[in-house]
Amino acid sequence: EPRVAATPETVSKLVGFGATVSVEKGAGEASRILDRFYTDAGAKVEASASAAVKGADVILAVRRPEASALAGAAKGALVLATADPFGNEAALAALAKAGLSVFAMELMPRITRAQVMDILSSQANLAGYQAVIEASMVYDRALPMMMTAAGTVRAAKVFVMGAGVAGLQAIATAKRLGGAVSATDVRAAAGEQVESLGAKFIMTEALKDASGTGGYARELTKDEQAAQAELVSGHIAKQD
Amino acid sequence: EPRVAATPETVSKLVGFGATVSVEKGAGEASRILDRFYTDAGAKVEASASAAVKGADVILAVRRPEASALAGAAKGALVLATADPFGNEAALAALAKAGLSVFAMELMPRITRAQVMDILSSQANLAGYQAVIEASMVYDRALPMMMTAAGTVRAAKVFVMGAGVAGLQAIATAKRLGGAVSATDVRAAAGEQVESLGAKFIMTEALKDASGTGGYARELTKDEQAAQAELVSGHIAKQD
Repeated sequence: EPRVAATPETVSKLVGFGATVSVEKGAGEASRILDRFYTDAGAKVEASASAAVKGADVILAVRRPEASALAGAAKGALVLATADPFGNEAALAALAKAGLSVFAMELMPRITRAQVMDILSSQANLAGYQAVIEASMVYDRALPMMMTAAGTVRAAKVFVMGAGVAGLQAIATAKRLGGAVSATDVRAAAGEQVESLGAKFIMTEALKDASGTGGYARELTKDEQAAQAELVSGHIAKQD
Repeated sequence: EPRVAATPETVSKLVGFGATVSVEKGAGEASRILDRFYTDAGAKVEASASAAVKGADVILAVRRPEASALAGAAKGALVLATADPFGNEAALAALAKAGLSVFAMELMPRITRAQVMDILSSQANLAGYQAVIEASMVYDRALPMMMTAAGTVRAAKVFVMGAGVAGLQAIATAKRLGGAVSATDVRAAAGEQVESLGAKFIMTEALKDASGTGGYARELTKDEQAAQAELVSGHIAKQD
């Protein structure tokens, strides 16, 4: 996991609130955050995770830690992480048995009050951006139309499947880079958002709308799936 | 050298003009152009460079070939390539001695009539684009400002040194990706071009203008170099 659950900036805010912060040695290295940046922000860097967790009341982690790794935490400590609870009932039971309260941050409802604690939108946003950067890196040509006196190279045709937070950011990034962008989604409402970004929206006639509750999509019927698959495979053949 | 001097598209044009075209086996592979694409365009794929060059009147290459590799070419054949002549007088003499006429394509003057044969602008254009894509890939954060309810991440500060064809394309690409871009050049005229792309131009007061002839820069004096270096090093310290 190259991410880290706290940056020197957030550590310094916690210290400002009067908290004592311990960070596991090397925790931020894969994010290019050196231990001394945490020290400078007022944290104590501990040689191991178990030393860092000793007596802790609040534990921040990117992914759900094992209960055994949190043995030294204070009774009733809070664990804030991507808890990934479904299918991992035994691991969660172990955490509960150890007296820890786990907040599955990815299940934070997307309501006004909870938005500032939303970990999904920011990560999806970055994933959509990074997907286009990586595609540009691997793609043999340039995304934008390139015009010089020696000739014109046309813009790359980019197709984005799914226009949620990640998809919309991918569309925006590919458009900014000058790609000729199209996108699809099973929710008819996504069409307007796709078009507002200057991309072309494609959706099969057979699928009127598969919007479910809360802005999410409902499951497609077999016929709808087949129609959507046929549309997409025909479209993909013309993409770069 | 991952580039190749002719694509199936240009081969097919040459064939259309009545030429017989031979391509060295695997010549386009590093550009992901398979031999059969050349065959489809009407070229003959030969097992070796010396077989492909046999009896050739015109030889297209990305970089200057060795005279020994062109032994089978017709007397008086033309070689079109990046000839890189300076400091390579012996290699050029060998080509001349073999009776070949070499066109150093990178020395094509940038005048209206010659522009369609200009190999520098298109390559510089791609280099400027690719430099920003690679920087985005390596950079720890995103280039654009990212706003979600959970917080705002500011745009990356990008500094481009030199605002020729490559630099201007790098500025444009970094701007499109949402970076906060600044640039420098020793030619005062570049300032207007930089600013027309929405980037900030910085230039030391000590250096009024180092424009030379034909849009190129003249060599700086020692004092000008020192002043420019001081400005740039101060500016770089604030960049991402």
